[in-house]
Formats: sequence, C-alpha cells, structure tokens
Amino acid sequence: MSQAPYDLVIRGGTVATSSDVYEADVAVQGERIAAVGQGLGPGAREIDARGKLVLPGGVDSHCHIEQLSAAGLMNADTFESATRAALFGGTTTVISFAAQHVGMELPRVVEDYHALARRGALVDYAFHMIVADPTEAALKEHIPALVRAGHGSIKVFMTYDRIRVDDERLLDILVAARESRAMVCVHAENHGMIAWMARRLVERGYTAPKYHAVSHPRVSETEAFRRLVAMSALVDQPVMIFHVSTAEGAAVIREARGEGLKIFAETCPHYLFQTRDDLDREGVQGAKWMCSPPTRTSADQEALWRALDLGDLQTVSSDHAPYRLDETGKLRAGPRPDFKQIANGQPGLDVRMPLLFDAMVSGGRLGVSKFVELTATAPARIYNLGRKGSIAVGKDADIAIWDPGARMTFSDATAPDGTGYTAYPGRTVRGWPTTVLVRGTIAVEDGTIKVSAGSGRFIARDGGEAATPTGRLSADMDPAQIFGARLL
Amino acid sequence: MSQAPYDLVIRGGTVATSSDVYEADVAVQGERIAAVGQGLGPGAREIDARGKLVLPGGVDSHCHIEQLSAAGLMNADTFESATRAALFGGTTTVISFAAQHVGMELPRVVEDYHALARRGALVDYAFHMIVADPTEAALKEHIPALVRAGHGSIKVFMTYDRIRVDDERLLDILVAARESRAMVCVHAENHGMIAWMARRLVERGYTAPKYHAVSHPRVSETEAFRRLVAMSALVDQPVMIFHVSTAEGAAVIREARGEGLKIFAETCPHYLFQTRDDLDREGVQGAKWMCSPPTRTSADQEALWRALDLGDLQTVSSDHAPYRLDETGKLRAGPRPDFKQIANGQPGLDVRMPLLFDAMVSGGRLGVSKFVELTATAPARIYNLGRKGSIAVGKDADIAIWDPGARMTFSDATAPDGTGYTAYPGRTVRGWPTTVLVRGTIAVEDGTIKVSAGSGRFIARDGGEAATPTGRLSADMDPAQIFGARLL
Amino acid sequence: MSQAPYDLVIRGGTVATSSDVYEADVAVQGERIAAVGQGLGPGAREIDARGKLVLPGGVDSHCHIEQLSAAGLMNADTFESATRAALFGGTTTVISFAAQHVGMELPRVVEDYHALARRGALVDYAFHMIVADPTEAALKEHIPALVRAGHGSIKVFMTYDRIRVDDERLLDILVAARESRAMVCVHAENHGMIAWMARRLVERGYTAPKYHAVSHPRVSETEAFRRLVAMSALVDQPVMIFHVSTAEGAAVIREARGEGLKIFAETCPHYLFQTRDDLDREGVQGAKWMCSPPTRTSADQEALWRALDLGDLQTVSSDHAPYRLDETGKLRAGPRPDFKQIANGQPGLDVRMPLLFDAMVSGGRLGVSKFVELTATAPARIYNLGRKGSIAVGKDADIAIWDPGARMTFSDATAPDGTGYTAYPGRTVRGWPTTVLVRGTIAVEDGTIKVSAGSGRFIARDGGEAATPTGRLSADMDPAQIFGARLL
Amino acid sequence: MSQAPYDLVIRGGTVATSSDVYEADVAVQGERIAAVGQGLGPGAREIDARGKLVLPGGVDSHCHIEQLSAAGLMNADTFESATRAALFGGTTTVISFAAQHVGMELPRVVEDYHALARRGALVDYAFHMIVADPTEAALKEHIPALVRAGHGSIKVFMTYDRIRVDDERLLDILVAARESRAMVCVHAENHGMIAWMARRLVERGYTAPKYHAVSHPRVSETEAFRRLVAMSALVDQPVMIFHVSTAEGAAVIREARGEGLKIFAETCPHYLFQTRDDLDREGVQGAKWMCSPPTRTSADQEALWRALDLGDLQTVSSDHAPYRLDETGKLRAGPRPDFKQIANGQPGLDVRMPLLFDAMVSGGRLGVSKFVELTATAPARIYNLGRKGSIAVGKDADIAIWDPGARMTFSDATAPDGTGYTAYPGRTVRGWPTTVLVRGTIAVEDGTIKVSAGSGRFIARDGGEAATPTGRLSADMDPAQIFGARLL
Repeated sequence: MSQAPYDLVIRGGTVATSSDVYEADVAVQGERIAAVGQGLGPGAREIDARGKLVLPGGVDSHCHIEQLSAAGLMNADTFESATRAALFGGTTTVISFAAQHVGMELPRVVEDYHALARRGALVDYAFHMIVADPTEAALKEHIPALVRAGHGSIKVFMTYDRIRVDDERLLDILVAARESRAMVCVHAENHGMIAWMARRLVERGYTAPKYHAVSHPRVSETEAFRRLVAMSALVDQPVMIFHVSTAEGAAVIREARGEGLKIFAETCPHYLFQTRDDLDREGVQGAKWMCSPPTRTSADQEALWRALDLGDLQTVSSDHAPYRLDETGKLRAGPRPDFKQIANGQPGLDVRMPLLFDAMVSGGRLGVSKFVELTATAPARIYNLGRKGSIAVGKDADIAIWDPGARMTFSDATAPDGTGYTAYPGRTVRGWPTTVLVRGTIAVEDGTIKVSAGSGRFIARDGGEAATPTGRLSADMDPAQIFGARLL
Repeated sequence: MSQAPYDLVIRGGTVATSSDVYEADVAVQGERIAAVGQGLGPGAREIDARGKLVLPGGVDSHCHIEQLSAAGLMNADTFESATRAALFGGTTTVISFAAQHVGMELPRVVEDYHALARRGALVDYAFHMIVADPTEAALKEHIPALVRAGHGSIKVFMTYDRIRVDDERLLDILVAARESRAMVCVHAENHGMIAWMARRLVERGYTAPKYHAVSHPRVSETEAFRRLVAMSALVDQPVMIFHVSTAEGAAVIREARGEGLKIFAETCPHYLFQTRDDLDREGVQGAKWMCSPPTRTSADQEALWRALDLGDLQTVSSDHAPYRLDETGKLRAGPRPDFKQIANGQPGLDVRMPLLFDAMVSGGRLGVSKFVELTATAPARIYNLGRKGSIAVGKDADIAIWDPGARMTFSDATAPDGTGYTAYPGRTVRGWPTTVLVRGTIAVEDGTIKVSAGSGRFIARDGGEAATPTGRLSADMDPAQIFGARLL
Repeated sequence: MSQAPYDLVIRGGTVATSSDVYEADVAVQGERIAAVGQGLGPGAREIDARGKLVLPGGVDSHCHIEQLSAAGLMNADTFESATRAALFGGTTTVISFAAQHVGMELPRVVEDYHALARRGALVDYAFHMIVADPTEAALKEHIPALVRAGHGSIKVFMTYDRIRVDDERLLDILVAARESRAMVCVHAENHGMIAWMARRLVERGYTAPKYHAVSHPRVSETEAFRRLVAMSALVDQPVMIFHVSTAEGAAVIREARGEGLKIFAETCPHYLFQTRDDLDREGVQGAKWMCSPPTRTSADQEALWRALDLGDLQTVSSDHAPYRLDETGKLRAGPRPDFKQIANGQPGLDVRMPLLFDAMVSGGRLGVSKFVELTATAPARIYNLGRKGSIAVGKDADIAIWDPGARMTFSDATAPDGTGYTAYPGRTVRGWPTTVLVRGTIAVEDGTIKVSAGSGRFIARDGGEAATPTGRLSADMDPAQIFGARLL
Repeated sequence: MSQAPYDLVIRGGTVATSSDVYEADVAVQGERIAAVGQGLGPGAREIDARGKLVLPGGVDSHCHIEQLSAAGLMNADTFESATRAALFGGTTTVISFAAQHVGMELPRVVEDYHALARRGALVDYAFHMIVADPTEAALKEHIPALVRAGHGSIKVFMTYDRIRVDDERLLDILVAARESRAMVCVHAENHGMIAWMARRLVERGYTAPKYHAVSHPRVSETEAFRRLVAMSALVDQPVMIFHVSTAEGAAVIREARGEGLKIFAETCPHYLFQTRDDLDREGVQGAKWMCSPPTRTSADQEALWRALDLGDLQTVSSDHAPYRLDETGKLRAGPRPDFKQIANGQPGLDVRMPLLFDAMVSGGRLGVSKFVELTATAPARIYNLGRKGSIAVGKDADIAIWDPGARMTFSDATAPDGTGYTAYPGRTVRGWPTTVLVRGTIAVEDGTIKVSAGSGRFIARDGGEAATPTGRLSADMDPAQIFGARLL
C-alpha cells in the first residue's frame, strides 16, 4: 500500500452516491478523492464521520448572484455573500448568470461577471449567458466564441419586459446554440397571458402580493412549455426547462421526452415546499414569497415529486434570486406597491439542500441516493461540470458531511445571505451539513466559514450531451420531404 | 287543401337534409319553402326535378370579397363577380369580411363594406369583422354596438404583419366578444416560426412559390391551435378555428372538444383536394396555389376527411381569396418575386360545392346528408343565419337543384370570378347545380345568371350558441380557487 | 293540388327532425308520411297539434322482452305488456333479443321469439341474436342464414356465467359477423374482476344490493372496452358497445373512434338520471335499481351527456330488463338474498323518452333535435331500420305528439309494464306524448291504447353501414407485413 | 494504512458504476470489495486491469434453468451447464424459476429446485415461484411461508395452456402477494387472441416456425399489459412485466408509470437484436428463434432502446429458455411439426451481456454506466439482492473484467449451454469479460471455468421496495367512496 499518508481521511461515515450507499472511509489527496474503502490508511488529517453521511457537495445549477435585473435592480447578494450561504447549506458549486441586457455586448457582460466572481466566490462556479439581445454579432460571433471559452450554456426568457425574446428570436438563439453545441435553458411562461392577467387584476384593485400568484395562470406555463417543445423539436436543439411549477407542466415534459425529444427540466424547493397560500400575508409581507412562476398547490407538489421520481425532472436548483424587502429591493417603488412593481424572486441557496435532505433522507421520500442524484450528480452531469457531483475516485473532493441527528430551525435572524429574511421562518429541518469541503479544503466547520473570498474557481465546460442534437430531423425540417430545402 | 296554387313547385326530385333523403315535391310560396310532399298541388311555375337532387343552397362562411389586404392589395373580385361565382357553384349565402386595418375605426369599416355589398351582391350575405386594432373604443364601444347591429362574429389573425394581434390583445378581444356574445374566428398560425422559416429560406435562395409550403411548418399550426385553445379555455370564450390543414391540427381540436371546450373548426376544399406538390410548378405558376396555411399531404387529406366525419371539424368553407397572377395581384412586386412578396390565397367560391358533391355524393364518401350538413346546414346553424341552410318548411327557398349526371371540367377560360384562373384546371367533376334559387327566385338557369347585382340582402345575426360561454370557469379564473379574484 | 284528402293531417304542430325545427302540418296517407307543409289540404281525420311537438316515435334498440335469462328466469314482461309500456312512453319500434343459451340452436331460438312477438307486439320490432354457444354450425351456417333472413345484428356477453364468451370465441363471432355483414353488440365488462369482487364482498358480509355497485369496479368497464376495441381492430369488424356507464369508458370509445375505428356506443337513461346511491335502500329495496353495469356517480352523468353531445355515444336505449321484486323475479332465491342471487336489470321502456324529453327539451339540455336524434333517428340509422326514425316524406308515420305543458309523475301504481314498480317513484317530468301513431294508426290517445296485440310487424334488416368493415387491416392482419399470412 | 495486504487487487482498470466512471484499483478482502482507489496497497494476488473495464458481474433476473415446462418438457440445461454459460458471459447471479404445475404443492416445488441448484450452480441464485395452481392453501399458507423463507417473488402466466391463470385467479395471487409483500412478475399476453390466431393459421396451412410470430399479434401484448395494469391498480399491488417486445407495450408502461402506478418492466436481448425475420428460415430451423412473445421489428427495437433510456423499462434479462432442436427438445412432436407443437424459448444466458456491451459500451449507445445499471445494478436493486450488482465498498466481489479490445464470434460449435446452438451464429461482438470473479474467487480466467458445481449460494430476499404497495387506493377500492366496503 501507499507509504505516504493521505492528506485527509474522512473516517467511518456512510457514503452515498446516486447508485450506492455503503460504509467506508474516504481518502483525499490534494484536491481530489483518492480512495474509498474500509480501513484505509491514515490521513495527515482525519475527520470522524461515524454516524454521519458523507455526500458530494451540492451543485446549484440555477442561481442569481450579484445580478442586475431587467428592471435595473441589483440583487441583494455579492458572490461572497451568496456563496457563503451556499456553503452553509452544503452546496459547493454554483452556476449563476452573466446577464445581457439590450444594447450590451455579450463578451463584455461575461467579462464583468467573471470579475465579480473572481473577487468574491467561495465555491467553484460557472455561468449561463443570458441572451436578451440576439444581434447578428451575438449569434454569429459572440456565442460561438464564448462557448469555446467554456461557457456551454445560454439562458433565455420567454417572458419579462425588456429581456424576453419572441418566438422568431428564440429560434435564432436555438439554432446558434445548435451550431455551437451550447445548452439552452429557458424561463418558459406565456408573456401575453401574464401581462393581460396582471393588468386586469390591478385595474380591479387586486394589488396585494398574493395576486401575483393569480396573474400567472397555470396555462401560462403549459402553453409556453408546449410552444418551446415545438420549437426545440423543429430545429432539433435540446432545451432545459427551468423551474417547473405545475402538474400539467411536468406532464408536458413527460410527453415530450416519451416522443424522444431531448427536453431536460428542473424544479426548485419552493415548488416542493411552499404553496401560493404562503403569499397570503399581511400588507406587503407576501412579497417575500413572490417568485415566477409562482408557487402553486399541494397537488402540484405531489406531481412534482412524482416527476422527480420518474426522471421527468432531473434536478432541483434553488433559483436563488435575493432582494431585500426594503427600498433597496422589493419596495423600491414605494412602501405600498402593487404586485407588478415588486421584484420577483426569493432566496434559497442555503436552504435547498437542507430542505431536500429533511424530506428525502430524514423523511425517507425517495431516499439518499436520489437526494445525491438530484442535488449534485445530475446537475454536474447535465451541465457537464467534469469532476463535480459525486463521491468517486478522481473526483474533486467537494464533500458535505451531514449529521442526520442535527436539527436546524430557520429564521430571519440567521439568514446567511443578503436578503435579511428566510422563506421558511420557524421551520425545523432534520439533518445538517456540519462539515463541508471544497476541493479537499475544509470550507465550513463548526458553523464557521474557513475559506476566503476568491477561493472559488471558474469551471470551463462545453455543452456536452445535453447540448447535442438527436440527429433526427422533424418532418418540418427534413429536406427529403420538403422540396429539398436544407435549413439545418 | 289550399285552393291557391303555390308560386313554384319543384317536382319529383330527391330532397336531402342533413338528416333525411327522400323523394318529394318542394313547394315555394313567396320567398319561403311552404311544403314538401308527394303529389303536392300545382305551382304557378313548376320545375321538373326528376332524377335530380334538391338541396339547400350552399352557405360559404369564409370568403374574402372586394377586400383590401394588409399589404394594401385589393383582391380580384367585387361583390358582383364573387357572388356570381358563388351562384354558379350552388352557393346562395356568403359571409365575407369587414376588414379593419390599424388606425381605422370599426364602424366606418363595416359601413364601407356594407355599401359595397349592397351595390353588388347577388346572394345574401353577412360580415365577419376583422379586428386588427383593438383600441379601448373598439373593445368597449364599437364591438358591442356592431354586434347589436347584427354583426355577430369577429375574425382575428395570429399571424401576418400589420393585422396580427399578440396574445395579450387576443385575450382582450376574446373577452370583449364574450361580453357582447360574439363569435370569434381565428387564423391560427405561429407567426414567429413562419417568419423565421421564411427568412431562412429566402436567405438560402429557396424563393420559388413551393417554398411557401416549407415556410409554414406543420407545428406552426398545432402550436397556434394549442395556444388559442388555452386562451379560449382561460376566459371561457368559444372560438372557431379557420382552415385546419394538418392531421395534428385536427387532433388538437378533437382533444380540446373532448375536454368539453367549445372549439369549432372548419377546413377548406384545397386541404381536401390539393397537396403541397401543387405548388411545384414552373416559374411563378405555383403562386396560384399559394394559400395560408399551405396545402399539405395526402395523409392530411385523409385525416381531415375523418375529422369531418367525426364532427371534429364542422364545416367546409372556400376561404376564397382571389388575386390575379399579374401586376395587379400576385406579381405586384415584380415578375420574379420571392414567395414572401406574393399575395396568399386562391379562388374557390365557385368550386367548393361541386368538388365536394363530386367526392361525397357522386363518389359516395360520407354521403349526401353529410354534404348538405357541411356545406349548408352546419354553417347556417353555427353562424346563426336564421332561415338559411336546409330544405325545411318555413326556411328561405335557397335551393340548388343538382343534376348528378352532369359533368363539368374546370378551366382557366371558364373561371367565373375575377382571378382569371382555376386551381383545378382540367379536373372534371360529376354533378352540377343546374338550377339555383335565392329566396324563391331563380338565380341560375341554363348556365345563366338571372338575378341582378344588389339583389342580395344583408342577414343580421347575433353570435348565437357558438358565442355562448360554457359557464364553467377554468381553475385559473375560478374565484373560489384564487384568492377571490373575480376577473370575468 | 291533390284532390283526394289525406287520410290524416296533424295540424299546426312544431315538427322536429334531427336537423330542423319548424311549424308545419304533417299529412299521412296510408301508413306513411305524405307531406309536411304550411296549410296542407284537409285530412279525413285531423289532429290539432297547435302548441305541441310532432316528433318521430322512439326507437328503443336495446330491450329485453319475454326473455329467459341465463339463470333460467323469465322476465316480467310479455311482448304485449312491454310494447304497451313502450307506446305509453312514445316508443314505436323496439329491438329485443332472441337469446340463445348453450345447447340451443340459433334458428330455433329465433323462431321461438318470432312467435312470441308475432302474438303480442303492439309496435314494430326486430331482434338481436344473442350468441352464447358459437358452435361450428352456428358460425358457418346459422348466423349467415339468419342475417340473410333479416336479423342483421348479434349480441354477445363478455361477462355473466353460462352466456359469456371468452376472447377466442368472441373473435370467432366477430369474424363470422364480418363475413355475414352483421353488427355485433357487446355487453363489455371484465368477468374476472367482477367475480373476484363479488366473492370478496360476500365473504366479508357485504351482501346488500348496494354492494352490487361495488362489485363492478369502474376498471371492469374500461378494461373490457379496451380489450373489445383491440379485438375489433384486429379483425376489422365494427362493434356497438352497449350501456356505457363511466366517464373513462366513454373516453376509451372517443379515443378509438379518433383512430378511425368503427366503434359505436350507447348509454341508457339510468346512467344519466340515477347514481349508485339509488341502490342504498332499506333491506332488499335497492334491488329494484340493480343493473349491470351499475349506475355510477353524478360526474359520470355529466361525462355521458358530453359524450352524447360530441357523438362519441350515438344512442340512448332503455336496456329494459324487467323483474318483479318477488319470488317470481328478483327474490327467487329467497327474501334475504345476497346481491349475487338477485337478477340484474330495471324496467325502462316507458320512461326512456319522457325522462330525456324532460331533460333535453323542457330542460333545454342539447335541445329537441338532439332528442330526436338520440331516441329515434340515430338508432334507426345505425340499426338499419329503413323507414323508421324521422318525420320525413315517405317514412312510416310513426309519430309521437308531445304536449310540452303536460306533467306526469311516475309511481309504482301506474307502472305500465309487468314489474310492478318504477325506478323513478315520485319524479315528475314535464312533457308527455299524448298521442302516438304507429304506421299512421293512432295507437295511444287520451291515455288509452288503441291498437291490439299482434299489430306490430317484424322489420327485416341487414347489418348495413355499422356492419361494414373499414377495409383497413391492422398491422397484425396485414399480409404484406406478416409473411404473407392471409387470415381475413 | 492497513498493514495486512488485501487478498486481491485488481489494478489500474476503469471502474464503472451506474453513477460514475473512473480509474482505480479495486481491492478485495474475503468475499467482499474492501476499497477502490488510486495506488491502493498490495494484494496477495493482483490482476492487471490496465486498459480494461472493471464492472459488476451481471445479474440475470429471468432465466429458465433445469425447468420442466407446462408441456412436460425438461429444458436443455442443468444448473451446472446454465451457470457455466452465465459465467462465460460475465453473469454472476441468476434468478431462475421454481415452477409449480397444477396439482403440485409449492413448498415441495421450491424444495426440489433448491436441491437442483444446490448441486449444480456455479453462481449465486434465487428463485421466482411460478404459481399455476392458486389453491386456498397456496394463497393463505404456502406463499406467506415461502416469502418469509426468502422467496420474495412470484411469477404468473396470463397465457399458455395448463399454467395460465385467469383474471379472477390473478387477482387472488396479486392480493396474496400484497399481503406477503412479494413481487409479482407476469408473462402478459392475451391468451384468446393467440389461440385464435394460431388455430386460424394452422387451419390455413401456415405452419412454419415463422408463423409463430404472426400468431402473437401486437395487440395481444398491449391488451394484456393494459389489463394487468388495471388489475395492479385495482388492488394496489406492484407488478413486474416481463419481456416487453413492442413499442406500444412500452408505451402502455410509460403511461401507467406516469400515473403513479408501480409498474416495473424488462426487455430481453432478442427484442433488441433480433426481428421476426430471424424466424424465416429453411424447414424448422426458424424454431431456434421462436420465443414468446416473438421478436418484432427494427422500429420496436428502437422504441425499446428509448424506453430503456427513459427508465420505462428498468432491466434487460436473458429469458434463457433452452431447448435442443432435436427430439429431446423442440422437435419432440416429430421432425415436421407445426409451430404450435414446438417449444418456445431461446438460449441467452451467455450472450446477454456481451451483446449489450458491444452495443452500449463499444458502440456507445447509452454508455457504460447505463450498461451496468441495466445488467446488474437495477436488477439487484429491484429484486432486492442485497450485496449484488455494483462495484462498491462492502458489496460482494462479483466482478467482470472486460477487455474492450477482445473480439468474439458466436457459433453453434462454441455455445456453452446445453442447446447446441446460438441465436447469433457468425455475429462478432467487441468486448469480452476475460476474467470473472464470484464473491472474490476467480471463476473464469483464460476462457476456463475455475469454480466447481455447487459453489453458488442461494440468496434469500424479501420483496423489498418493488413489492410495497403505493398506499394510494384506487377509487374502486376506496371505502370512503363505495359504501364503506373494506376489501384490502
């Protein structure tokens, strides 16, 4: 056996992958996992993990950090505050956004966010490029170059004023992504329905935050999903559908996948643990629970759990979108805004994994391997994050050691991010990631952050499998069927 | 028995309604049918119909007459030429369009088309109001007033530059119609897909008329149908989907109807008798067969026949949209236009019923009662045309006497409308309406028109059953479910 | 005009066909309708129908008359008592059963029922041949010969001990019918599920009549429908599915029809007007409402109404199956039987049309033309009954004159059939057929029967359109696909 | 680090689990995997695996070994010959059958097969109990006792004379399994359709083996699947559907799973690598490729691959059913039998994994992790085989070392089982399991078996997760809905 001791051995814990659960020591050498086994040789440092679960650090593939919204509002987190919150919750990799607005050039946008992350990030990171202005230069030059530089995914919006793209533009982006082999992630809601509902609600005096939930009818989700699926099929470009909120939406995805289309999808903890009733609060308090699409009903929660179980949805991300409930954030338009004047989004980087651990591991729903799959392995695989997402030899030693006996009660006072509040005040979860490692370095221990701002690294990645066309052309694009027109 | 003779007796023919087929005399008194029976008393005038079929005159619920297109192009027919063509083909009632363009006020638009029809029409007529500019005044004042004045239906476009309305506007129109009890007819295709396809085709040099068929992918129809159905369901307003062209489109409608939604739909003869291969001609000749949506495949033809049989589609209209193939019409942009510069639409008022008679009665497909249903009874019922659409006591004596032994071969030379061509050159049909009556007056006899311009009358009608909401609110609109918000 | 007066003129009523509604006189000459019109000449006899509806007499295509059950029990009606009940309810044609049991030869069975009907029937009639013993002789000789003799329809059971046929036998019968061009009507429920449920219920002491409803799980209907549809598709033989009771069952039929299969279906008034709660009565009283399949829920009622509206179901028959609630009938096994010892079936020949008139015409649900379609025109067309089913020139003058202002309250005391009870005690319907004609002869007037036993006539008919294969072979039967095996 | 060397180290290979692929040494201590890692300490024995894939030994969850068929025919393999074939193909665990026939008592049946396996097996094994005679004793006593003894799964047949159970019996078995927490595996085909087809084929002289494929129409599979799913849902008992052969069959399963039902399913290599055309051979040669359900078309192959990818089907088993093509086997009825006289089944224990490795790993279809999942991890998990099915610390050291560069060409001459033929003569696969370990012992090396008959061990297991009801009762079984009847 190797004479030199390992740098670190996590001893005696229960290791779980998305495939297996077993008792073993985990040995780290440098930044990587060197071995797992029973009775492994000594480590220069050792962590006693008896009675604990040794799991891969979380991968949060959808979070908004230090981002300027379309409405010109900076969110409440820096990379430092956001990734600190991530670490407390057991998350060791984030994908946030490089958000273009109309008139901005993508390369400069990406550069700017790079600078912010380089300075602040405590965990490793990558970016989705938000494309809001698909100019000729963006489509033909910038996107290909940026994909080659390791930015293998694009995000587009089908709703929201100023950043949404219409169907014709969306097809342009899908085809540009297809040619560069980039993933395309989509916020898919029907803009017209939402605008119409909101206008009609406000006209009739229904202005409280809870009416936000009414303003996004269920069909605004299913309609947009179907339309997006049709466009994806038309040009044979896979898509990732963000934040599925309804049972019907999940069913659209299941149907599309059953037809052989490459449709990927995620949901978020708030759709699993909240309902629209959470918005029904005194005054503007409900604003804290506003997000888009809005949370729905307990029947939708059940349907989303089933969709996760069946693989129709593959990951659970936080969609962390932090705004303070004050004049710097959600109340920028004044203390008594109507719901359309309030920024959407809720914090969640810290609570995503603990909430899911509580339900899935402590509560037994779907089990620990599925927890690992949804929170780490699947996002790492789908977003092509290389050495992230699993406890396996050669992987980065991004590890969260969970104490299943620990209890944590969320409160506004202890919210670790910049919003000043939690969406789960008073809720107690069973199980907590008491020790967290990033690339072999202890990042959290005893409730304290042990790494400094800027220690996170950028992860270059190409689009990978989830960006690879099926190669089966739709009837609408098959030159053999349509007068020989070759369009792809 | 009545001592006075009937004004007219059509003697010894085979009468067909959508329910029954039987041999009987048909007696006319004044403008109406007074009796049907065996051995009816004498008429002041008698027509020998032995060996003939005595059927209701056709109702063509979708035709463009003397209409200015969005592109500023006047079509090739006046009310006189168009309704002459209608009469030759056995059609005795038409619904054409009062076409608003942006900036026009609806009441004035309707007034203008009234004047044109009053001067020229040889058959009875009504108008669909095309709403392209849903201003506050249009929605709140003009539409209600015009519906009260007997204009019970609205037409909207989801595609075409300048006249299309986006989803938010479409919802406004649906709700305005709901409040006025007007029917809403829709040209439903996805605009962005078509624009994207056309741009890409032209960029790559695929400019011939046949590429028009490529530029409207099949999913542009299904996608728009689904979106429209979602909006219809959201606000509980029935819709009539015009010119279904694909099997999948028909399936969307079947599914929606199965869920209890009030979705009506039609197809047109060109989708039953042509395929996209008809566009594949020398030079710009294919332009004659260009229409939107384009014609599809023989498999779609079969699916549409089945959908008619099953009642998923309820009527067959001509979508008569006549343009000459010269510099006044389809070639206005020059002799070598790309397909996007060519006006869409083909003539069809004259051939609709003969083509269907040939297939359904002479050919036996679905039979004569279904022929009557699709071409006369159902459009009269759905569009609420009162005394039109059937051979029944008290109905207007709008009657076409068909000689099943007659043969007619279509040719450009004999095209009765203003286009100068037929879409079916050289095609011979079996069966012809040798005599046609409008309100008891012989309008066609021996191949000659016997009535004069302006003899047609306007038919006032309200929206009727097809404009009546189901009364079942969607979950998205049910105040009991959504914080009590009452939006309808 | 004709000098000779008509034999009979029904004057001034509102005539309805499945297509039209209009005010007209109806003139009868001999047994047929001679004319309809305004101001028709005099009749030797005249009936004042002002304020009344003049409708075709009902066609009841599914009723058990003077029939021996599989359990050896004679039902409570003779042809005389049953057709008297039919007449009181406005029904002028019945199709009952010639019920083979194992060991009987079909020709003799048919002969026997012929004799019974000839002696007793007050209305015209035809037979479905129940085939329970598909011997070689039955399949190859008897069925073809009987179809040629005018018995164009077969009935088979997928459940019930002694008379049910298994899948292999059912395929034999479908193919024999296919070759003879006979319709096949099917009682489709899964036998094993029902037997299992009933056994388990009785074992656990759930023996009251209401548990009959539990013993036929909803899936026993849908499962059997799907299986039957599969067999129908396999051998390309149309089928008529009797007495659809559930929403899911109707959906199976809609789906099959949408695929182009020739599946016909009916429901019965008890599925539209009763629920399983009707079985929940003191002691064995619930036995009066026992039928198979059992009645379901109000949600199913709504679904069945929708299926009728959409044409998924085409007719409403009574499934009249009369047994007295005494030792001659339902209680033959003793005064305290478990539900499996009680004969299934309820009376309904008399109430079918009044219940539907009350709902559809007085209540406005779907309207009078649809009432006519479902109760008369469609069954006459589907079962190929020639001159029955409509008010049209040349048709048999089978006419019911309904007084929409009349009220009738059902009670056991006035039940006109042989059961001694009604399933609707105390229920008042609006509208009643005060005068009923059979082939021009007044059969009911002033609440009195005016015709005598044996005045009904047998109607010979072949299978017609509903017995004609589609001609499209399934993949499983297409010789081009399967090594050239030619099996049909 | 541990001072004592490991018993065995497999050094330098590429390890794959269903989750991860990485380079590592694998250390074995005793019968178990002790560690995986880079640079692990020395082993008493070392295997050089550089350039090789180190994968879990296969788990074949469906194979017929030393089994007496319903027709009284002993198959061609003993446990020794069959498990030798398994080992050559990289399979280290088998589940075969303890096959009851009518009149036999289950405990005795299980005992007999235990004795056979104990004597002959070279690999570890478990049994599915075939229940063909569900007597009261079997249901109430034998099944519960045998499940407690570690026989956690039951197999039933919906077709085949003598061993099939009808729907009522199947429900009995499902509920007995539910109460004992046993899995139920089902051969689901519609017996009547197959019997009818076969009879008709033979009558018409279509007797060659290829007509076997015709005799099992596609709908015989889908129909039986739907019926089985309905019964599974009715009594809330999960089922495993064996050997899915058609696209439509896979779709039925996808639909059922989407509704939340616990339906598991497998397919077999012959449905992925053969078509019915393989049966089209000279004389009776086609008999070698006869199996039930029969192989289908290349379109079905594609659909099954997709279903595996989507998780609709979870495992691939061999359905090894070996008969010699001579008078001891397929030709027992004579040299020129019709296809109904020929035993169904083909050999496959040896080729299952090499065929799949060739396609999935060498060919790249779905990849090595999915190969591991389908052939080892998933069957071990679903059938609850404890320490089988993965390369993970603590698992049994059942390991196959695959040389991706090796080539093997199948031929009758080298068929390792007792049939004397291979179904893939002349087919060359890329990749071969050159070394195979069972519980740490080298079982195959250099093409030679190194273990002796009887070295395999029985694996006791309970039904596990796949035998656990959902707890959600169907409407048909919910006492709250059905007069309080409590049936489960």
